[in-house]
Amino acid sequence: MVPEPARLTLADLATMVGGRAVGDVDKEISGVASLEKAGPSDLGLLVDSGYSRPALDSPAGAILVSSELEATLDPTRSRIVVKNPRVALPVILERFYSAPGPLPGVHDTAIVSESSKCGAGVSMGPYVVIEDDVEIGEGSTLHAHVVVRRGARLGQRVTLHPHVVVYPHVQLGDRVVLHAGARVGVDGFGYTRADEGLQRIPHVGGCVIGDDVEIGANSCVDRGSIGETVLKEQVKLDNLVHIAHNVTVGPRTVMAAQVGIAGSTEVGADTMWGGQAGAKDHIRVGDGARIAGRTGLTEDVPAGSTMGGFPARSLKEFLKAQALLFRLGSLRRRVRVLERLMAARDDR
Amino acid sequence: MVPEPARLTLADLATMVGGRAVGDVDKEISGVASLEKAGPSDLGLLVDSGYSRPALDSPAGAILVSSELEATLDPTRSRIVVKNPRVALPVILERFYSAPGPLPGVHDTAIVSESSKCGAGVSMGPYVVIEDDVEIGEGSTLHAHVVVRRGARLGQRVTLHPHVVVYPHVQLGDRVVLHAGARVGVDGFGYTRADEGLQRIPHVGGCVIGDDVEIGANSCVDRGSIGETVLKEQVKLDNLVHIAHNVTVGPRTVMAAQVGIAGSTEVGADTMWGGQAGAKDHIRVGDGARIAGRTGLTEDVPAGSTMGGFPARSLKEFLKAQALLFRLGSLRRRVRVLERLMAARDDR
Amino acid sequence: MVPEPARLTLADLATMVGGRAVGDVDKEISGVASLEKAGPSDLGLLVDSGYSRPALDSPAGAILVSSELEATLDPTRSRIVVKNPRVALPVILERFYSAPGPLPGVHDTAIVSESSKCGAGVSMGPYVVIEDDVEIGEGSTLHAHVVVRRGARLGQRVTLHPHVVVYPHVQLGDRVVLHAGARVGVDGFGYTRADEGLQRIPHVGGCVIGDDVEIGANSCVDRGSIGETVLKEQVKLDNLVHIAHNVTVGPRTVMAAQVGIAGSTEVGADTMWGGQAGAKDHIRVGDGARIAGRTGLTEDVPAGSTMGGFPARSLKEFLKAQALLFRLGSLRRRVRVLERLMAARDDR
Repeated sequence: MVPEPARLTLADLATMVGGRAVGDVDKEISGVASLEKAGPSDLGLLVDSGYSRPALDSPAGAILVSSELEATLDPTRSRIVVKNPRVALPVILERFYSAPGPLPGVHDTAIVSESSKCGAGVSMGPYVVIEDDVEIGEGSTLHAHVVVRRGARLGQRVTLHPHVVVYPHVQLGDRVVLHAGARVGVDGFGYTRADEGLQRIPHVGGCVIGDDVEIGANSCVDRGSIGETVLKEQVKLDNLVHIAHNVTVGPRTVMAAQVGIAGSTEVGADTMWGGQAGAKDHIRVGDGARIAGRTGLTEDVPAGSTMGGFPARSLKEFLKAQALLFRLGSLRRRVRVLERLMAARDDR
Repeated sequence: MVPEPARLTLADLATMVGGRAVGDVDKEISGVASLEKAGPSDLGLLVDSGYSRPALDSPAGAILVSSELEATLDPTRSRIVVKNPRVALPVILERFYSAPGPLPGVHDTAIVSESSKCGAGVSMGPYVVIEDDVEIGEGSTLHAHVVVRRGARLGQRVTLHPHVVVYPHVQLGDRVVLHAGARVGVDGFGYTRADEGLQRIPHVGGCVIGDDVEIGANSCVDRGSIGETVLKEQVKLDNLVHIAHNVTVGPRTVMAAQVGIAGSTEVGADTMWGGQAGAKDHIRVGDGARIAGRTGLTEDVPAGSTMGGFPARSLKEFLKAQALLFRLGSLRRRVRVLERLMAARDDR
Repeated sequence: MVPEPARLTLADLATMVGGRAVGDVDKEISGVASLEKAGPSDLGLLVDSGYSRPALDSPAGAILVSSELEATLDPTRSRIVVKNPRVALPVILERFYSAPGPLPGVHDTAIVSESSKCGAGVSMGPYVVIEDDVEIGEGSTLHAHVVVRRGARLGQRVTLHPHVVVYPHVQLGDRVVLHAGARVGVDGFGYTRADEGLQRIPHVGGCVIGDDVEIGANSCVDRGSIGETVLKEQVKLDNLVHIAHNVTVGPRTVMAAQVGIAGSTEVGADTMWGGQAGAKDHIRVGDGARIAGRTGLTEDVPAGSTMGGFPARSLKEFLKAQALLFRLGSLRRRVRVLERLMAARDDR
């Protein structure tokens, strides 16, 4: 755990999130924890009604609870009551465990091409490498060992965690966060079978990452072959995700770990993808579609659909078919019975 | 996009690819783009008949088209006509967007063991680390932060993108390309349950990568436990692929992203794998087999098969079974009707 | 292959593993190989009865065999007979191919914060970066380009392969091994939909890795949001595995490549996971459960279960249902026959 969080009273915290403090409002709170693990100076979280039993026994010093669930608590419990604890939580966490500020300046060992331009307040850790003609916006932080290749453009307040590689001519919007080992703008995967064998199709397209996009550790985003690969604003990718060449991902799309999207597929706005799901190349996934974990899309998906299985169907249909599948043995037995009855009659 | 491509006339380009220029043959072309995105000085691509509608409206200055599809174009369109645009395209792209030459020499910060040997024209970026007894062939390029461990041997004109790690004693053939973050020769995954718990089986085998192999970003290839892991010439792996210890992959095999091959499996020549497919350990996959995306192979596959599903069947059989599965509800209803009819007769 | 292994006689080797040398006991053995590839000075391995045919033809100088299978060998074969060759093998391999010792000291280019503490005998390769307040236990080896961020604590004899990143405040036990490109303590993946769009939930929890844990190349382990992500002692993860925030993995659990475990799931002790399997968030997997490759768990799994398919069932039930599925066509035809017979009777 991050050490030495600040100490604040229950009343202070309630004010901070526009909530109501009840009980021992002067109690000092020194941290945030789950109900099970919270200690007597921690604020515990009561998020779902499903968690109401632990709330009875929790040693938490106080509890963060929604107005809706307040009545399920022992009325003598010290608490902060808010409309939506999920919205209040980040504010409180930020206060207790404020992330360390940017690194101080540019480390001596960072190698920055003279033809590159850095905005004010850019900080770089040890062994960062910035190639020719790169532009980096104000207030961006590049951690140790980051490599930004020639011609790439980074917006303001971008954070590149250690070991990120940005390929040539990639564009990153403002406040983009790339986690350790993310690779962005990789040459796409395309070959032509020629007489001499497999011939690589040069990938000369772009890779454009919108504002507030976050990409998880060791995830890979390819550049376009011709044309561009585009992640629109606020796209969030978890770890080990693969986005192939010429894919477009609509704004606010969220993809869990190990998802893979094949070449030229167009993903709409506000879609959500469970872990290990995938999509075939050259298909369209409509706005707001929800793709269950491990789903494999093989054709276009209308806006607002909820899909499951492989080849994907509506999630409902998929789950129903799976349930039927496990009653197939009984169906076979019923057919056998009918066949015997029929044969017995023929014998009569 | 890569800036400032060369300017060439339509006639120049046609000559370059052995094609025929029609229309405004002196028009200067400055780039290549998809039909939708091409501007008036771009060459647009008409590859499939499926794209013929956009061709009507495309603002492209000229169109690259196959002789077969030429008739679908407006006859006044300036164009280059070739037998196979997919073969002509790489040639044209190479001319417009020639990849930058190798890095100039060995960067001051590269650390190269004195016991290592580098051929002529080898270039290394900042912070490259070459351990003892490494050999690097002529004209190879190692980008920033590449680590080549002791005893590894690299062929000629190898390209290692930033952050590649080559483990000890790995052999890379000529013209091998490893993308950012690829790990080659990793200790394989094998344990024995002994009295004290899980005991690692040392992996002392080799890892041999053939000529013209390409390995995608963040992909991992393990070394052999004893014996070798082998990728034959022209094998192409996409991003985030896993190849376990003692696997052999036949020449010209192409694996899309996130494929995983378990230990000691033998993959034949010219096989093709869709994304997120996998193969169990100790099986054989015959030459020319085609493995659909998300397929899970659990047993040997004959040469020339096309497989799908999990556990894998022929793709045809898999798709047919999936279709039937979604009509199971109707089959159950038909059996219920038969049962009622049968019961009604018994009552008669 | 690692060059120049030591030379030992068959008698020496037998003594070393508490086995019995038979035949030409003074024969010098210079390496270990599979039966197919072993040469006349190699010790070949006869592990399963399934391998007994190659044993007849193997050119191996001698064979390592279990007492159980000894009788299947040509009695004139030189051999070492042991109870369990799988336990003897690591001992012999270790002797032949001893891994190189730790790197000599701390490389000049390693950047180590003055506020960090290193135990005796710690070695660091080139370009290692150790941030503030890190503690590193005795005898640990950090290879080139490793980054350990502020406040992390490493136990004794830890090995971090090149390019590993350890995020802030992570704790690694003794003898932990992280392979190239592993990322440990990554900010977890959690967002709240607020009015301004997706708002990141700060991840301020911990990440605690037990003694003797090994994590494969390019695998990712997230830190807790609040609370901790925990890998207990002797957990072994293969390459490209994803462990989400707040997951607990029980001791001696083994996960093959590309497995993914979603947030807050609790995995018991001694579980085994095949490649590309996954588990939903917030479920419990009982001790000793065996999860077949490509399985997708969507609900709690009792201790000792063997699971397969998606949504997962018992492996037996899954495989049976799959087999029935491929006989569905025949079942449909039988129902059609019954329907015709029934109709024919009605006509009578």
